[in-house]
Amino acid sequence: MWKPDRQSRKPVYEQITDHLEQRIAYGEFPPGSLLPSERKLAEQLGVNRSTVILAFSELRALGIIESRSGSGTRVSQHKWGATPRHTPNWKRYAEGGSFLPNVPFLRRIREALQQNPSLIDFASGELSGDLSPLNEIAALMREHHYASYLGYVDPQGYMPLRQALVAYLDKYRGIQTTESSILITSGSQQSLFLITQCLLSPGDAVAIEDPSYAYSLPMFQSAGLRLFRLPVDHDGMCPDDLHALYKKHRIKMIFTNPNFQNPTGMVLHEERRAKLLEAARELGLPIVEDDPYSLTDYNGLTRPSLKSVDSTGSIIYIGSLSKIAASGLRIGWMVAPNAIVERLADARQQMDFGLSVIPQQVAAQFLSSEHFEPHLDRLRMQLLYKRDLLIEALQKELPDAVQYEIPQGGIHMWCKLIPEIHDAKLLEEAIKHGVVFVPGSVYGSDSGFVRFTFARAKTEDIGPGIARFAKALRTLTP
Amino acid sequence: MWKPDRQSRKPVYEQITDHLEQRIAYGEFPPGSLLPSERKLAEQLGVNRSTVILAFSELRALGIIESRSGSGTRVSQHKWGATPRHTPNWKRYAEGGSFLPNVPFLRRIREALQQNPSLIDFASGELSGDLSPLNEIAALMREHHYASYLGYVDPQGYMPLRQALVAYLDKYRGIQTTESSILITSGSQQSLFLITQCLLSPGDAVAIEDPSYAYSLPMFQSAGLRLFRLPVDHDGMCPDDLHALYKKHRIKMIFTNPNFQNPTGMVLHEERRAKLLEAARELGLPIVEDDPYSLTDYNGLTRPSLKSVDSTGSIIYIGSLSKIAASGLRIGWMVAPNAIVERLADARQQMDFGLSVIPQQVAAQFLSSEHFEPHLDRLRMQLLYKRDLLIEALQKELPDAVQYEIPQGGIHMWCKLIPEIHDAKLLEEAIKHGVVFVPGSVYGSDSGFVRFTFARAKTEDIGPGIARFAKALRTLTP
Ligand SMILES: Cc1ncc(COP(=O)(O)O)c(C=O)c1O
Ligand SMILES: Cc1ncc(COP(=O)(O)O)c(C=O)c1O
Repeated sequence: MWKPDRQSRKPVYEQITDHLEQRIAYGEFPPGSLLPSERKLAEQLGVNRSTVILAFSELRALGIIESRSGSGTRVSQHKWGATPRHTPNWKRYAEGGSFLPNVPFLRRIREALQQNPSLIDFASGELSGDLSPLNEIAALMREHHYASYLGYVDPQGYMPLRQALVAYLDKYRGIQTTESSILITSGSQQSLFLITQCLLSPGDAVAIEDPSYAYSLPMFQSAGLRLFRLPVDHDGMCPDDLHALYKKHRIKMIFTNPNFQNPTGMVLHEERRAKLLEAARELGLPIVEDDPYSLTDYNGLTRPSLKSVDSTGSIIYIGSLSKIAASGLRIGWMVAPNAIVERLADARQQMDFGLSVIPQQVAAQFLSSEHFEPHLDRLRMQLLYKRDLLIEALQKELPDAVQYEIPQGGIHMWCKLIPEIHDAKLLEEAIKHGVVFVPGSVYGSDSGFVRFTFARAKTEDIGPGIARFAKALRTLTP
Repeated sequence: MWKPDRQSRKPVYEQITDHLEQRIAYGEFPPGSLLPSERKLAEQLGVNRSTVILAFSELRALGIIESRSGSGTRVSQHKWGATPRHTPNWKRYAEGGSFLPNVPFLRRIREALQQNPSLIDFASGELSGDLSPLNEIAALMREHHYASYLGYVDPQGYMPLRQALVAYLDKYRGIQTTESSILITSGSQQSLFLITQCLLSPGDAVAIEDPSYAYSLPMFQSAGLRLFRLPVDHDGMCPDDLHALYKKHRIKMIFTNPNFQNPTGMVLHEERRAKLLEAARELGLPIVEDDPYSLTDYNGLTRPSLKSVDSTGSIIYIGSLSKIAASGLRIGWMVAPNAIVERLADARQQMDFGLSVIPQQVAAQFLSSEHFEPHLDRLRMQLLYKRDLLIEALQKELPDAVQYEIPQGGIHMWCKLIPEIHDAKLLEEAIKHGVVFVPGSVYGSDSGFVRFTFARAKTEDIGPGIARFAKALRTLTP
């Protein structure tokens, strides 16, 4: 990102004028397009708003931009050459298509984090760098000759990684399968995308948890799916309504995250598992088991997968390295009947031609290496430690303002706020105070809930982060 | 892939029986699902068909599978437990969704290559391993500490790679831009997917070249686009019909691959470039410039990009490392106005959460390294050498049977067959003779054309490959 050079003898506003003129000339902002607001540009460039106002007035004087009150500042239409020329109406294209934009809260959080990297981050659902096996992976990359093959990979994914996953799934998730039933995807995210795009049709009804990670994903709505809710409490999702939902809406699929659910952190109770499987069997309904968190269990490797106890083949199982190793590897997997795996592998070829072979090689090596188990042991201890730091801070800073169940695994904590506060106001105030979280409504719940992810922030930032949050909250409660 | 163990004392048919029983028990083939045919399984496992027939009869005797003449062999419905249980109708799910399957010819070619890796491959549009900079990349991976950050990456892509591309685009493609106008994608393929899915709507009309790589991509049809053709000859695409097409069908976008086009290998003539840009300007139409081959120019770095001479900002430019370095890196890029890049980056987050950071780091280093230029020089010489080997072989083996224009860059050669031969028959006969190519109809042309890719086969296989093709052709011409 370009920033003005404060050592330069050229005044900052002139640097900004030249920089913007250049970007406009490059076609980044075509004739007629909207420029970022003065406020936003000032934030991005780290200057006063008055400096940007000055730069804009220079550009206006040059005839390069035009401002009309109320409708912002635009690049002039007739700047480029003598004859009027027609630039495509890019705005209309950007607003076209059936794919919905991301949830505004999530875009706001991303933007805030980009603008101010010193925000304490309870929003990003990932591990901090020190929880990822960075040294182990670096060592593997030095030892192995990864670049010995760099052609297009098998549509289902790199065979040695699928082989490593056969062993992994057997050992850690009680799942017996073969390489031909596995599809490697860009994290669980791409597995979910392929399922919603390629196995379901617009108008289809599906059951999802409430609250659920799925609500944060416009992909469900972009695919035209009708969403029906199964409430989640401290025993996980309640499957009682399934028959009624099926009767009324002919639901086509059930999505669940049974272990250390995002966002609640809760585990699906054994009786409910049996009920869920029984209902799926009776109704002939597939279940998508999204299982990225199981191996973070603070008490050891105890929670079975649904798939390991399913005897009817009703389950599409999804896993990922994102929450147990590193999200930046972008390695996930799906286990499903052959017909499904082949169909989705074929569709994925159209979308991106498959994943790079390098992270697949790294993942295969890492899963089979002697580093994997010690890493998991360490990860679980560190997550438990961070969870406890968060609870301690909440007890100290917000003793009467939040309620929560204590999760036994995973990376999220779900809190109910006692004072009634508007989601958007609280988020903006928190950003001002130097901390971000995700408002519960992003996951489909009523307002008044907050998801704190405790894996991403540094250990020493968890206490101060909650102190900032508490301050923001107090500002809004009289 | 499992294969029977021929050293084992257990008979091969029993090994196959046990293996299939296990895969069925794992849920890979759920109750009611279709098994591969006897012929296909025999091919896959490398055994006689009679061996598979024996294994199937064992499984039938065990009640695990059922065969009905004409409808193949299926897994029994009531095998698993005493009470009848309902497995989801996976076949219906696999056939649902709006995403179309890949072109049958391409699936047939992939299958043939999987079953018989010794086929000589004139079909895969990629470089052979020895043309990729494998040693250079391996050296970079040893030198640099790539795993120092492994979190989720900025939605537009890893910043140092975008910075390296700003310099690359300026130096090699005459394009001035900034990091904020660049989106890193999983090859050009994902750029095309994002454009067709997110900027256009079902029913929209677009102009594409004829023949064109786009015809091989069901993504255009999956997005519900109406395709209109601009014929390609030895001067590239002819833009004369654009006004008429616009008037009649309100086309919304133009897709072109101006340099060393896939499949024809031809270059868009300078006069036609001017006409194309002029028409786009008059009609306010965006052009998607798909430009993966320019740097393979056998005569040096001479062909300008359309974008470098466009003054209206009508162009979305797409590039890739696939054809100039390695397809398995899965690194491509798009240069577009801000509004477009932000929209597509946001949508891509929903689909796969972005690319792994590791290949992006490798690509950034490679593009900026001293290895890049010498690699390009070597690549161009080797491609020219392979092209000449192909021409030599065609002259020797098929002097009166093929016509072609000689490409001056790229990796494909487009041949018209003189004898009239059915596409599918020729492909099957070629596979039998140990060689694969892509039938021209895949790219939208009438039958009677063949695309030979000469970059993928080993140097020493090019002559023998064409000899095999010639033999197959002769078998079919009396
Ligand atoms: C339940 C669940 N599924 C899927 C994902 C997607 O993660 P990834 O694509 O990195 O595996 C997440 C990430 O937050 C998640 O919590
Ligand atoms: C013209 C053209 N565009 C795009 C692609 C896709 O390649 P990749 O996604 O590997 O960059 C190809 C590959 O054959 C091509 O020929």
